[in-house]
Amino acid sequence: MRRTLGLGLAMLATILGGAPAHAEDGYDLWMRYPAAGPAVTGIETRGKSPTLRIAAAELRRGLTGMHTSAIMLAKAADPGVAALRLPVASLGDEGYLIRSVTLRGRAVTLVTANTDRGVLYGSFALLRHLQTGGRPDRIDLTSTPLVKLRVLNHWDNLDGVVERGYAGQSLWDWWTLPDFRDPRYVDYARANASIGINGTVLNNVNAKADSLTAPYIAKAAALADVFRPYGIKVYLSARFSAPIEIGGLKTADPLDPAVAAWWKAKSDEIYRAIPDFGGFLVKANSEGQPGPRDYHRSHADGANMLAAAVRPHGGIVMWRAFVYAETDPEDRAKQAYTEFKPLDGKFADNVIVQVKNGAIDFQPREPFHPLFGAMPKTPLMIEFQITKEYLGFATHLAYLGPLFAETLEADTMAKGPGSTVARQVAGIAGVANIGRDRDWAGSTFNQANWFAFGRMAWDPTLGSDAVAREWAAMTFSPALVEPVVKMMMGSREAVVDYMTPLGLAHVMATGHHYGPGPWVADLKRPEWNPVYYHKADKAGIGFDRTASGSNAVAQYAPPVARMLADPATTPERDLLWFHHVPWTRPMASGRTLWAELVHHYDAGIGYVAGMRRDWDALRSQVDDERWQKTATYLAVQEREARWWRDASLAYWMSVNGLTLPAGAAAPAHDLAWYEAQRFPHAPGNPQ
Amino acid sequence: MRRTLGLGLAMLATILGGAPAHAEDGYDLWMRYPAAGPAVTGIETRGKSPTLRIAAAELRRGLTGMHTSAIMLAKAADPGVAALRLPVASLGDEGYLIRSVTLRGRAVTLVTANTDRGVLYGSFALLRHLQTGGRPDRIDLTSTPLVKLRVLNHWDNLDGVVERGYAGQSLWDWWTLPDFRDPRYVDYARANASIGINGTVLNNVNAKADSLTAPYIAKAAALADVFRPYGIKVYLSARFSAPIEIGGLKTADPLDPAVAAWWKAKSDEIYRAIPDFGGFLVKANSEGQPGPRDYHRSHADGANMLAAAVRPHGGIVMWRAFVYAETDPEDRAKQAYTEFKPLDGKFADNVIVQVKNGAIDFQPREPFHPLFGAMPKTPLMIEFQITKEYLGFATHLAYLGPLFAETLEADTMAKGPGSTVARQVAGIAGVANIGRDRDWAGSTFNQANWFAFGRMAWDPTLGSDAVAREWAAMTFSPALVEPVVKMMMGSREAVVDYMTPLGLAHVMATGHHYGPGPWVADLKRPEWNPVYYHKADKAGIGFDRTASGSNAVAQYAPPVARMLADPATTPERDLLWFHHVPWTRPMASGRTLWAELVHHYDAGIGYVAGMRRDWDALRSQVDDERWQKTATYLAVQEREARWWRDASLAYWMSVNGLTLPAGAAAPAHDLAWYEAQRFPHAPGNPQ
Repeated sequence: MRRTLGLGLAMLATILGGAPAHAEDGYDLWMRYPAAGPAVTGIETRGKSPTLRIAAAELRRGLTGMHTSAIMLAKAADPGVAALRLPVASLGDEGYLIRSVTLRGRAVTLVTANTDRGVLYGSFALLRHLQTGGRPDRIDLTSTPLVKLRVLNHWDNLDGVVERGYAGQSLWDWWTLPDFRDPRYVDYARANASIGINGTVLNNVNAKADSLTAPYIAKAAALADVFRPYGIKVYLSARFSAPIEIGGLKTADPLDPAVAAWWKAKSDEIYRAIPDFGGFLVKANSEGQPGPRDYHRSHADGANMLAAAVRPHGGIVMWRAFVYAETDPEDRAKQAYTEFKPLDGKFADNVIVQVKNGAIDFQPREPFHPLFGAMPKTPLMIEFQITKEYLGFATHLAYLGPLFAETLEADTMAKGPGSTVARQVAGIAGVANIGRDRDWAGSTFNQANWFAFGRMAWDPTLGSDAVAREWAAMTFSPALVEPVVKMMMGSREAVVDYMTPLGLAHVMATGHHYGPGPWVADLKRPEWNPVYYHKADKAGIGFDRTASGSNAVAQYAPPVARMLADPATTPERDLLWFHHVPWTRPMASGRTLWAELVHHYDAGIGYVAGMRRDWDALRSQVDDERWQKTATYLAVQEREARWWRDASLAYWMSVNGLTLPAGAAAPAHDLAWYEAQRFPHAPGNPQ
Repeated sequence: MRRTLGLGLAMLATILGGAPAHAEDGYDLWMRYPAAGPAVTGIETRGKSPTLRIAAAELRRGLTGMHTSAIMLAKAADPGVAALRLPVASLGDEGYLIRSVTLRGRAVTLVTANTDRGVLYGSFALLRHLQTGGRPDRIDLTSTPLVKLRVLNHWDNLDGVVERGYAGQSLWDWWTLPDFRDPRYVDYARANASIGINGTVLNNVNAKADSLTAPYIAKAAALADVFRPYGIKVYLSARFSAPIEIGGLKTADPLDPAVAAWWKAKSDEIYRAIPDFGGFLVKANSEGQPGPRDYHRSHADGANMLAAAVRPHGGIVMWRAFVYAETDPEDRAKQAYTEFKPLDGKFADNVIVQVKNGAIDFQPREPFHPLFGAMPKTPLMIEFQITKEYLGFATHLAYLGPLFAETLEADTMAKGPGSTVARQVAGIAGVANIGRDRDWAGSTFNQANWFAFGRMAWDPTLGSDAVAREWAAMTFSPALVEPVVKMMMGSREAVVDYMTPLGLAHVMATGHHYGPGPWVADLKRPEWNPVYYHKADKAGIGFDRTASGSNAVAQYAPPVARMLADPATTPERDLLWFHHVPWTRPMASGRTLWAELVHHYDAGIGYVAGMRRDWDALRSQVDDERWQKTATYLAVQEREARWWRDASLAYWMSVNGLTLPAGAAAPAHDLAWYEAQRFPHAPGNPQ
């Protein structure tokens, strides 16, 4: 009562010009329901599961208004629904159908599915339909996910630090779990369910064995309890050497029966606490992590041993293909394929191999990974990075929908034309950009990348533009869709332009990957150095991955390999990824490569400057707090885009001895100045 | 407009039974203004400073209602105010006067002071008066701070980790500063100004030199800009070896002219960015930190060199007396006095020596530090720990008002009876318990410790009970004052009882200080081991600090020293701090010491169980979110109180061979079980 009164007066104060009690801080994400929703008399539910209760509560939250029509949530097996003979068979266990029907003589909006989970997805779809301006009557919506496994990977350490996280501490307060269940965990589950994410890996792939001890299993179980009615399964990253570290064994050899028995017992223990536990994610023999290769066993040996442990419970093992070795002189871009391709057919059927979108490491742009389409007997899943480790951290506006789409729609030609990457994968993983910051993702526009990941994992054919339109309407308002989507759609290409144009990659500074470092050449492992990737010299720039070089192109299907073997048929955007090219080479524009590079850097800066102008024009249409933070970040981005351009050009000129094309501005500082920049406490880079 | 409409409908939804858009998450602290405030026609301000604007805005935020009286904010020098001939001379530059007066023919509530800052403090005092149920008319309030320097010490590292922090990451997002000024910084300043805190040390006393580099000075300056109109000065912890680490010098010897010149130039640089910079806080030659002793110079040499650098700008140096050395076999409790007492009179007059409340380290209870009253020629400040490093972290409810009061009111007898600690200090510092958690302090009741620190620093004579009453009325409602204050007032004593009864100290587990570890005896430095502090053996328990032992008692003024030299006249609460006592010693209760110890452990548990019952009874009167979190934490506290009691008793019995008194429950586990507990990722303990 007191609360209600307080809110009433707060409203009054707002109307009268006082400050609102709560500013708009972005916490509500895209789940901002229209104040004047459609006319609804009531929301009825057939059945009583927690999931159906949640679906009804969410609709009540979103739909305020007087009366006209009613909403009915019911599974397809409900006799009344069954009598309608709707096409529910094809919905599977996650799809939904929403239709304006007459049920038992009454006009209702029916949300139905074969499972409670499907009804929940349908409820969020109905809300999205209305949030994006869809009409409330004569609805007929149906959708099923094209990809079964849609999971977030949290690179969250047990001490709360998020590796490559730029949105504050880990959401999981391991210290107060399992006792305290922060209400925020529910909002996390709501957000994920609203975009169809159905799994979450709670801890970093660079895992500690502690996460598999009894206290941490109990903590994970508490989170699983919160997430379960939202259709979200919990997974854990497993440290391969855990049998030694917490099991008291002398070895973690996957073929040692004691090791297999330990994992079996550990899995049984986890499933007692979390009956629907999803399974393990494993980073093995990669960047210092332990793995089966330590015992001269294959990745298949390691994965299959773990798969056997979780199989009785219906669990799976997601085994990462992100491997490269300092002892291996082979082109880093080739090593995952070289190691995994021969294992095709050797994995147990509850193993799924998780492959990054590109062959290096989440660059602003990478050609699709050659493993897609290359392991026909092995289920693969694609791993994207939603957090922007290599794209300016939280402060750069880069909508990743086009990046996701570019890879998912790439044609591997593995089974002839149309063999898109999306058709070669059974799952999609995204390295989360979420932390405990009030706005979850470090900025309002970063929320779009979480949203786009979920929506495009559900349906890779939606298109990044349509997804951006949904997000803009839901997060701001339908009236702001055009200007906001215009900013978003070119924003990732702008980052490519001012950081790594024309196929350049991994020229970021060391460790934290913040800012430019193309000059770095002194790190211990050759493939940690930017010079390894760009190979710039007096004559030219780029990594020769054709037959005259590392021949990485040969890892692609023949039609693709042929196209990439020739600079003339290689898309210019990937040119320097595959070829070492003279600075003077003429490009499609008629410019030399050198002039074209300069042009791209400047285009990137220009795009950011344009976003600032566009955003300035929206000032009166966006609440102060979200407008101001975005405006501040765009200013940072423009400053840093100039820094990237100037530092990169200063370095390239020190290598090629060329002068800038006419009209191009000289770098603001000399090369030594750029080389001297240090960022000792850059976020996301745990020591 | 859209926003207003949204709020209106949200209100409607609340009235109609829908979920509120924002749950009560504790973010508003004690600044929850009564919805139906007193009748106010308008708020007028004489003058236009940012501080006065803030004062008026805060009153507008707090006072909603129709009309009857008006509020006038004006400095005492305003001609209209001056004509009233109010007693403003004694207000100094921070005090305020609030009075219902007739000004230029109108009845107004006048808030006046000699400075804008004073008017701001008065505005918050008026709000507090109304929040705690004070009548809106015939007001006559005046107050001046008894202690001039009232500062928070943030032990916040530049990477966002808060040492001994249990409320999330550092508030300061160094990465996005100085560009982005999180609106939360304003709310932090509001909260501090509302309780009279006038300074904040932004970074950890275990400092990195990076905080003194140009980029970090710019970041600190951005915070200083936000805090300035709230009367809050910014200070920085200074790493003594910074001239070497970031200055390129070969030495940090305070008597080296190049070192002094470096600090002078660095101070000038800081003051260019922050004209009202407060000065430096220094932890030198303590727990591995560099300092003047590295160069065989005294603490006075080090402090005075820094003091000379900030003196031209009006800055000060807060030099910590928290020193002890592994090479010094002397009782750790004596070492600060031994080192600093001879320096009395040797410090520059803009140096203030910061002394912890007790001679060890922020224990649940410590006798007052012997340096208080012992350095008559040196300004001292007292340092409390608001964060609960040794009192159960964020999850234990322990209201620290009584701890603050106990030390501040302790009589040093330095200048005869009545020489309380409060009268011996020129400043009060509190190690902040604040982080980026939504509720700032990790729990609702931890907010009370921030509040009490500020209020008691302003006026140490207020009494912890009165302060608790203010807080409870403001944070919950006047109706809840009695039951909430009842819980609070005995809560710290309960922690003493179940952790360190009868003068025990530092028996916590290693490193993180979470949970019991009285058995720990294997750490490198003797004074890191709990056995060093309790000295339990077959015959008895306690540290003999009389003439037959370390003679630490001789560091107190003679009347105090005499009292503490005799177990019979030593307060029982401090008995084992000063004496090694037979287990069989009869206590005032008639019980043996052993039985008395058991009694205290059980009393502590009993008190927590009582708080749980009291809180359960308030369920319907407290909003769900705050009620649930507190209830969960109280359950954790009761479980951990039992753990403390059982582990401690199991260990004491292993030493004294005694059985438990009749009726006392046996520990739940054997000693080995307690010794085996490990908490590898306990918060607040940076590696």
